[in-house]
Amino acid sequence: MPIIQSLLDVDFYKFTMGQLAFHRYPKIQVRYGFKNRTKAVKLAKIINPCKLREELDWTRDNVRTDKSELHYLRGTNEYQDRMFEEDYLEFFRELQLPDYHLEVIDGNLVLEFAGPWPSVIYWETMALAIINELYYHALIKGMNRFNQDLVFAEGKMRLAEKIERLRAYPEITFSDFGTRRRFSFDWQDYVVGVLAQELPRQFLGTSNTYLAMKHALLPMGTEAHEMDMVYTGIFHGSDDEIRSSHQKVLEDWWAEYGWGLSIALSDTFGTDFFFRDMSREQANAWKGIRQDSGDPIAIGEKAIAFYRSHGIDPMEKLIVFSDGLEVDKIIELYEHFKGRIRTTFGWGTNLTNDLGFKPLSIVIKIIEANGHGTVKLSDNLAKAIGKPEDIERFKRIFRYSGTDYTETKY
Amino acid sequence: MPIIQSLLDVDFYKFTMGQLAFHRYPKIQVRYGFKNRTKAVKLAKIINPCKLREELDWTRDNVRTDKSELHYLRGTNEYQDRMFEEDYLEFFRELQLPDYHLEVIDGNLVLEFAGPWPSVIYWETMALAIINELYYHALIKGMNRFNQDLVFAEGKMRLAEKIERLRAYPEITFSDFGTRRRFSFDWQDYVVGVLAQELPRQFLGTSNTYLAMKHALLPMGTEAHEMDMVYTGIFHGSDDEIRSSHQKVLEDWWAEYGWGLSIALSDTFGTDFFFRDMSREQANAWKGIRQDSGDPIAIGEKAIAFYRSHGIDPMEKLIVFSDGLEVDKIIELYEHFKGRIRTTFGWGTNLTNDLGFKPLSIVIKIIEANGHGTVKLSDNLAKAIGKPEDIERFKRIFRYSGTDYTETKY
Repeated sequence: MPIIQSLLDVDFYKFTMGQLAFHRYPKIQVRYGFKNRTKAVKLAKIINPCKLREELDWTRDNVRTDKSELHYLRGTNEYQDRMFEEDYLEFFRELQLPDYHLEVIDGNLVLEFAGPWPSVIYWETMALAIINELYYHALIKGMNRFNQDLVFAEGKMRLAEKIERLRAYPEITFSDFGTRRRFSFDWQDYVVGVLAQELPRQFLGTSNTYLAMKHALLPMGTEAHEMDMVYTGIFHGSDDEIRSSHQKVLEDWWAEYGWGLSIALSDTFGTDFFFRDMSREQANAWKGIRQDSGDPIAIGEKAIAFYRSHGIDPMEKLIVFSDGLEVDKIIELYEHFKGRIRTTFGWGTNLTNDLGFKPLSIVIKIIEANGHGTVKLSDNLAKAIGKPEDIERFKRIFRYSGTDYTETKY
Repeated sequence: MPIIQSLLDVDFYKFTMGQLAFHRYPKIQVRYGFKNRTKAVKLAKIINPCKLREELDWTRDNVRTDKSELHYLRGTNEYQDRMFEEDYLEFFRELQLPDYHLEVIDGNLVLEFAGPWPSVIYWETMALAIINELYYHALIKGMNRFNQDLVFAEGKMRLAEKIERLRAYPEITFSDFGTRRRFSFDWQDYVVGVLAQELPRQFLGTSNTYLAMKHALLPMGTEAHEMDMVYTGIFHGSDDEIRSSHQKVLEDWWAEYGWGLSIALSDTFGTDFFFRDMSREQANAWKGIRQDSGDPIAIGEKAIAFYRSHGIDPMEKLIVFSDGLEVDKIIELYEHFKGRIRTTFGWGTNLTNDLGFKPLSIVIKIIEANGHGTVKLSDNLAKAIGKPEDIERFKRIFRYSGTDYTETKY
């Protein structure tokens, strides 16, 4: 069975960003590039590139959306009534995924996806899920039956431990953000099903739209770095034009979805810039932010200070922590911020891929938009993306002063 | 699916003893009684007696032997060429299991099987396996799906730990003796399959004839306490007649099977008596003994002293330890006797029922043979069977001086 079976087996934020791209910038050409941050692993030596090609071909040529899936998207009203409009649904129904470019250089996979932003946007989480599943399948396929069984036994024991730990903190809420890094589709499906049953009040939902539909959960997700990155390509020009493109993202997003999806990702160009750029009015209006790099305690404290400086009670605001979470870190962050600012957790790799193997830190990021190289700085320079000269320019533009460089585990 | 699906889903010693009974004492009437040594558990409050009746009825009325199973028995030549003769195989093919008697008294199951020895003998391990599986099924059926999964995950982790421990001692050999106490048929099947794959040189075989056939392993087993116990009924009379019936067992067994199956169970009337009763010639001829109660170190030392007293090198003899084994005890016994007497291990409850639940110590033992109450003393009086006055008489007859009384875990 090919890995991807449904065009909803995609993170929900691809639909929210996808509709915005379709409505506002349908002609903008973008390019996404795959990056393996786990440098010790030469992926093309473990994954058979022909097998990867087969999976990508299958996804491009055969995975289409069906009536029920369109009904599901059309019926989504948890964030905003009828948030997906008919023009977008019609476009999505007819969608042909653009082609991909794959080559192997020095044992590494070079994988890119280019095309009009509204069409190419869906590849990200599907391609990552495919690479992960092929990788872990390669790791276990040489094992005998019993040792394979033990992998899943270990995974179940670890999942049970997470559940027991979190049950002791009934106020901690979290969501599955693990599609892109999952051990396999079946394992993510299993984990999501178990969490829905075991922690029905704490487990809020999943970023995986198909699994949200299957398990009757809330599909979770708002926006990603690619929003900020693509806008610097669309509004490319002087330093001021690039800098002000960030404000344009906030304005467009609010215009498209309003309060319902108003969780802003703060770290694309450094959280310090983000707080300088967000107006008092926006700080008042938006639900909160998502923290995805850097020291979460320090960034949470900055958020509290930011809201206070605008006379806003931080307890009315929410931080979604989503960077490299593990159960200890979740509990630590919850305890630290309890009563000071609202928190919730988007738990990825360590939730859907904790069966005893080392995690693989892989991403697919925008590398070019509208003909211009793109940059993500983030609050940890080990996660920075972009050509060195572009990164330097963007540091100046956004007055980036961070020096944190911490190799990511996830 | 009913639990028992094949008349080979029976411990192999039931066939070896069954053929001897059929050949020599086909008319002897015997009665077996069920006993739950785990007094804290009122079985009839956990197992639905109607469900137990259904399973027993199914086994009695529907489980028959088929051509392939008869071929398997006929082809068994590991102990002695064509050890099962045609008259016995024909009898077994036509076998109708005798009826059972079941009632519930004060929350306890009263379960007995009576009939001609060669026909009723097969019930023991099937009925115990049924009771165990119904019991553990009752314990897990209230659990949700994930918690049930965790039971098997835990079982797999524990099995893996056993395997890793034993892999470090490549000279330790062992067999599965866990049919009667298994968590379920499926779990025993799984454990046996894994051991065959993981420890092919150390895992010698299984007492379960069906699983030996399925996994192409050696069916393991020689004789049980019931041999000695039934013979006291057959040759009942004066103290001397009762005492000398034990020698008759050794003689008949040798006459039926010779060297191939010459492992004697030493503890029916106490191992001290056994060593007094076994002649120098028998000590020379027989492969060894099986230790099933009392202190295994002390009994092994007695065996070494016994063989030496007859001028026999103990390294030519074998002790099969089979009492309440766990991996630590196996390693301890192996290390203690290494280079002094050969050892192997018949591992029961803790091998096929180690998934996190407390084990249940249940047995089905001969309680009457040829109209006489029967007695088992064993090297641990907590395992003694028989009416109090019969036990006292047998202690005198066999000059039993043991005082050990240790509650059994298994």
